Amino acid sequence: MPHRVVVVGGGFAGLNLVRALRRAPVDVTLIDRRNFHVFQPLLYQVATGGLSPGDIAAALRWVLRRQANARVLLGEVTAVDAAQRLVRLGDGDAVPFDTLVVATGAANHYFGRSEWAPLAPALKTVEDATEIRSRILAAFERAERAVEPAQRHGALTFLVVGAGPTGVELAGAIGELAGHTLRREFRAFDPRAARVLMVEGGPRVLPTFPERLSRAAARSLARLGVEVLTDAFVTEIRPGAVRVRASQGETTIPADTVLWAAGVRASPLGAVLAATTGADLDRSGRVMVGPDLAVPGHADVFVIGDLAHVLDEAGNPLPGLAPVAMQQGRYVAKRIRRRLAGRDLPAFRYHNKGQLATIGRAAAVADLGWLRFSGFPAWALWLFLHLMYLVGFENRLLVFTQWAWNYFTWNRGTRLIAHAEKTLGG
Amino acid sequence: MPHRVVVVGGGFAGLNLVRALRRAPVDVTLIDRRNFHVFQPLLYQVATGGLSPGDIAAALRWVLRRQANARVLLGEVTAVDAAQRLVRLGDGDAVPFDTLVVATGAANHYFGRSEWAPLAPALKTVEDATEIRSRILAAFERAERAVEPAQRHGALTFLVVGAGPTGVELAGAIGELAGHTLRREFRAFDPRAARVLMVEGGPRVLPTFPERLSRAAARSLARLGVEVLTDAFVTEIRPGAVRVRASQGETTIPADTVLWAAGVRASPLGAVLAATTGADLDRSGRVMVGPDLAVPGHADVFVIGDLAHVLDEAGNPLPGLAPVAMQQGRYVAKRIRRRLAGRDLPAFRYHNKGQLATIGRAAAVADLGWLRFSGFPAWALWLFLHLMYLVGFENRLLVFTQWAWNYFTWNRGTRLIAHAEKTLGG
Repeated sequence: MPHRVVVVGGGFAGLNLVRALRRAPVDVTLIDRRNFHVFQPLLYQVATGGLSPGDIAAALRWVLRRQANARVLLGEVTAVDAAQRLVRLGDGDAVPFDTLVVATGAANHYFGRSEWAPLAPALKTVEDATEIRSRILAAFERAERAVEPAQRHGALTFLVVGAGPTGVELAGAIGELAGHTLRREFRAFDPRAARVLMVEGGPRVLPTFPERLSRAAARSLARLGVEVLTDAFVTEIRPGAVRVRASQGETTIPADTVLWAAGVRASPLGAVLAATTGADLDRSGRVMVGPDLAVPGHADVFVIGDLAHVLDEAGNPLPGLAPVAMQQGRYVAKRIRRRLAGRDLPAFRYHNKGQLATIGRAAAVADLGWLRFSGFPAWALWLFLHLMYLVGFENRLLVFTQWAWNYFTWNRGTRLIAHAEKTLGG
Repeated sequence: MPHRVVVVGGGFAGLNLVRALRRAPVDVTLIDRRNFHVFQPLLYQVATGGLSPGDIAAALRWVLRRQANARVLLGEVTAVDAAQRLVRLGDGDAVPFDTLVVATGAANHYFGRSEWAPLAPALKTVEDATEIRSRILAAFERAERAVEPAQRHGALTFLVVGAGPTGVELAGAIGELAGHTLRREFRAFDPRAARVLMVEGGPRVLPTFPERLSRAAARSLARLGVEVLTDAFVTEIRPGAVRVRASQGETTIPADTVLWAAGVRASPLGAVLAATTGADLDRSGRVMVGPDLAVPGHADVFVIGDLAHVLDEAGNPLPGLAPVAMQQGRYVAKRIRRRLAGRDLPAFRYHNKGQLATIGRAAAVADLGWLRFSGFPAWALWLFLHLMYLVGFENRLLVFTQWAWNYFTWNRGTRLIAHAEKTLGG
């Protein structure tokens, strides 16, 4: 019987691992709760009406249809037994493994204030994205029907918590919606009156980027009408209002729509794995793995992607980015192939090709390490890379078509409010 | 103050009416529960993974953005006061009118068995379509994980109730999914083992078409592996099983996925309107209107589209089809313009250009009255007309791209199971 590799999670890490094993003498089982892979970096475009969920998703079975040594199981892994070498699914089924790779990523984290989750949705799944899209568009609809100025003011205030790449992308896109896309569409108010605020705990937007690029991003945000509050913390979220503490003191900001882009926490499977293997978790719940990405003492149990705590050469933990996850997936695949051939592989090393963030139309920042730039060239690079890495040629074609269309018309064509009856109240 | 026209419902009837009033000296208010128009004839393609909801939806505000005399209100009309000349929204707001046009269409109808609705979803809204898509795809996923043959057999049986155009389109598309699209994607079974059944109360499929075309459609369905039970009635639906009474007696068919395409009933606003105007309703709850499409005794209150009961020259009620709704919308717009100019307009007359239904790839039937044909030419005509009538150039481009792609690859790219955790059970 061939060596059985079980992979949990079909994100960037897991899917790249499975594909890199296509010619290996192994049986691969990919287990995911969802039947599709999501291209997470474009989720914010679904949340702001630019793309459909289907454009950035690819059915896992379809991606792996020609890989005869791989099968896909739809299910949720709830337990891992490292001694018996099997994982258990929610419905009780057990799947045995010779090598296990856990790549279940991260979920949103409200720093102990989980009651904020329904008031300030975060952007991790396609359901999150369509929910956020509905809230943003429904807020403009309420503004059209508002009688009191205060009611309209609250409806037209959008507050994004966190100024990392996701927060900046969301705030920039809402700024564009209000300033351009919706311009002619309302009769009772001018959408340009909308206020988009970002609240960031640190001293600048895009804190992981060099300071010069943070300043460029802040200028692009200002051009889109986005106000940034730095060194500021959200202390309370209530329906219709957010309390913010900044250096000048604490204030209450009336805002109907609050979006959370402030923190992530490792998937709960990390703790499950720690319990059975004795692995350590870091403060965010990520599993501390060795330089071979295996759990210490368990050479056949790997953790990759956002769930793994891995240090770079300087001793800093690697960030939760798609390139890290993809490289780790390919590394572990290679490690498995080598081991089956009785050979070893040097420790994992992340080849940092840089980081990118987009703020809006023709505005982005790129930090390639050896070269740092912003504006149109950074945006063009961003477009090119995102189209290139998108899974599935049809998705690339559809996204390209819509981007071209959106660029020339300023429109965003995917503006469905789900279950409007509920969203509107009344 | 200009003449105030209030239109309730932004489907084919309402939207065509509003656009036909663009140069009229009136103020138009379009009220809809949803912020978008849906191109209903393609909903079945969303339900079977071929298109995204955004591809067949257009934001009402966007469609009307350049029409200065029109505004859009997102809201649900719950009451009509014909004497006071106003409609009331769910949240208590009142909107006054000089002329009222009600075009809220039809909803699904389970012939008094509303407890069947959750067991056998019907296809009316985009939420219905994504729910049906999830159920169909999740059934194949359960088959992959099934241990017992009976369990797999139930998961792989799809039963469609009703063999009108929607039922035929759904059954044909499921047949294609099983027979072609999913062919290489499962490891534990061959998707071609799936069974697709249609249960039709009448003696043939597509009962509104000429007999010769019904036979052609039945042959196309048979080629896709769809079994048709005619003169058969569903007497009970339970989770996992359907009881069917046919001439040979009553049998229980194990089927996990049951889809309802058997009956529609007019929107409840018809009854609301009848109460305030004294109008009569037909058996399906449609409002009986005069030859001018106005409610008898209320020359300023019109009902159009699927909610209206209108007789053709032969004395038969007009069918609930998009061309009927569009022509009625344009007729009432003309009538309003004429009346404001002090002129009259002859009674509404439906120009029947024929009917079309598609069964699958290169298979359709067309009845143009003077010409009846099936197969590839009918399918090409179907494609052309549906692309042409789709609202929004971007939608046309996206749908065309996906159709071309799906045709050449046999793929259906939009295969997301929503909330898979729940769908799977366990």
